[in-house]
Amino acid sequence: VRAVCVIGLGLIGGSVLRAAVAAGRDGFGATASASTASAASADGYCVWPSVDAALARAAERDALVVLAMPLPEVAGVLDRVAAVAPGSRLTDVVSVQAPMDELVRRHAPGARYVGGHPMAGTADSGWAAGSAELFEGAAWVVAADDGLDLDVWRDVAELAWTCGAEVVPAAAADHDDAVARVSHLPHLLAAVLAAVGADAESDLPLALAAGSFRDGTRVAGTRPELVLAMCEGNRSALLAAVDDALGRFGAMRGSLASTGGLAATVRAGHAATQRLTRVQQAARVRADLNVPDALTRLREIGSRGERVIGWRG
Amino acid sequence: VRAVCVIGLGLIGGSVLRAAVAAGRDGFGATASASTASAASADGYCVWPSVDAALARAAERDALVVLAMPLPEVAGVLDRVAAVAPGSRLTDVVSVQAPMDELVRRHAPGARYVGGHPMAGTADSGWAAGSAELFEGAAWVVAADDGLDLDVWRDVAELAWTCGAEVVPAAAADHDDAVARVSHLPHLLAAVLAAVGADAESDLPLALAAGSFRDGTRVAGTRPELVLAMCEGNRSALLAAVDDALGRFGAMRGSLASTGGLAATVRAGHAATQRLTRVQQAARVRADLNVPDALTRLREIGSRGERVIGWRG
Repeated sequence: VRAVCVIGLGLIGGSVLRAAVAAGRDGFGATASASTASAASADGYCVWPSVDAALARAAERDALVVLAMPLPEVAGVLDRVAAVAPGSRLTDVVSVQAPMDELVRRHAPGARYVGGHPMAGTADSGWAAGSAELFEGAAWVVAADDGLDLDVWRDVAELAWTCGAEVVPAAAADHDDAVARVSHLPHLLAAVLAAVGADAESDLPLALAAGSFRDGTRVAGTRPELVLAMCEGNRSALLAAVDDALGRFGAMRGSLASTGGLAATVRAGHAATQRLTRVQQAARVRADLNVPDALTRLREIGSRGERVIGWRG
Repeated sequence: VRAVCVIGLGLIGGSVLRAAVAAGRDGFGATASASTASAASADGYCVWPSVDAALARAAERDALVVLAMPLPEVAGVLDRVAAVAPGSRLTDVVSVQAPMDELVRRHAPGARYVGGHPMAGTADSGWAAGSAELFEGAAWVVAADDGLDLDVWRDVAELAWTCGAEVVPAAAADHDDAVARVSHLPHLLAAVLAAVGADAESDLPLALAAGSFRDGTRVAGTRPELVLAMCEGNRSALLAAVDDALGRFGAMRGSLASTGGLAATVRAGHAATQRLTRVQQAARVRADLNVPDALTRLREIGSRGERVIGWRG
């Protein structure tokens, strides 16, 4: 079973390392934070004293390297990959894919890179918030653009399964559009809603806030730096999703002001939640990498909302 | 202890009836739905065969009458109040207050009316979804405009406490503005977000939806008729809240498109969630109805986000 080298030990990276080790794999890591390194070591994990040292070990073991730092820090780490472990099997958990592709091409062009993105998280962050169970049942996107290295694709899918997740194959651009809609836009709407609730002369509105406001604003409690890195890193796809939301919200405003009617908005939202329930129960399938059009077929699986849970045959 | 007559036995009314009876009070009700009447009777509750019969019984017992139907059905029931029990002690759980005031003035001007609004609910609806514990720890707004009947105010506050809730006194207009921000706007934003997630050629976005999308769209699963009755009934206050949200969302869009920066939006949202946590821990106080400016003092309590949990002295 292939070793796993996790660079960055926050909520996501720390959870990947825990899950890999819990599944019996050779897992080790590195982090730029001395306090995180101490905490992870104290919890019994192998943390190398520097990113270079971890990458050197990864090269020695032909490990799968997992980049797990915020997007703004990726370029610096990729420069170290290019210097210390240039031909690595490489993936990430960074949350945007087209910008990551571009960074890898520029900073570590020799790496055998297949992007990844586990769709899990909490409002908390940092090593202490992580757990080996964080990805249980979650979707884990694995990039499926033409030309990717199928051998590394297998490694990334198997890491996702090791973590208890299910694999959703998708082209990088489709992934970025999808997460703009279902992951980044929710953070912006939550922030706007929270601010409108707090924007009154008295504390009465916040005193009356109950389930609908708490649900709708929960992710606005996430550490702003993490939200900014995630959303600003997906700017172009996010702008399209924001414009879609603004168009719908503006049409609703017009209808409320003119006829007072909200039925179109409310019914479309209700129908969408029913579709959400159906899609999230979509088939779990097995995939075959040993066919000529393997990546095309994988992308079709993702478009249908299905998830890959193992290999065929 | 005063008897309680609940007209309308859906989620909220059904829960009020259950909580009043569980606390040992004489509680009875009526509903326009034959199937709901059967279900509530089968569960052991006293359900009169018609609204008129229940109101006649309420008049006989000098009960507190609780209106618990959607806003569009209120006028018809108020006409029966005026006919059968014109001087009733009257409150409601309808969710908007200025429009309710207006309806009572027009249809049952003799009623001793003090508006109420328990801030609790679930995405489910109907008698079967209710429970005696629904209001445990919830805010229950009681209208505190000048001129209200303090004897009925006491009845309504004591009903809220019977149900396990805490009382937030507020002027009707302030209440309507507050719920537009923290209860109605969240339903519209949830509907818009759900529609944007479902608005793609493939099912990939919904397949990738995780915690932030599920939290942000949860209330879009509420039965559309209930959401429409609630939101459309608070049109004027809601329009102001929608415009506040649109202004913030539009400014964010401009910043994303020009500099790519989202810090102002994200930081304001984060600060608002911290203020929410503080306000929801505001003091629990005791109130005194036997002072000349009792209603002014009650409104001040609500403006500070505090909650009344009993009488002073």
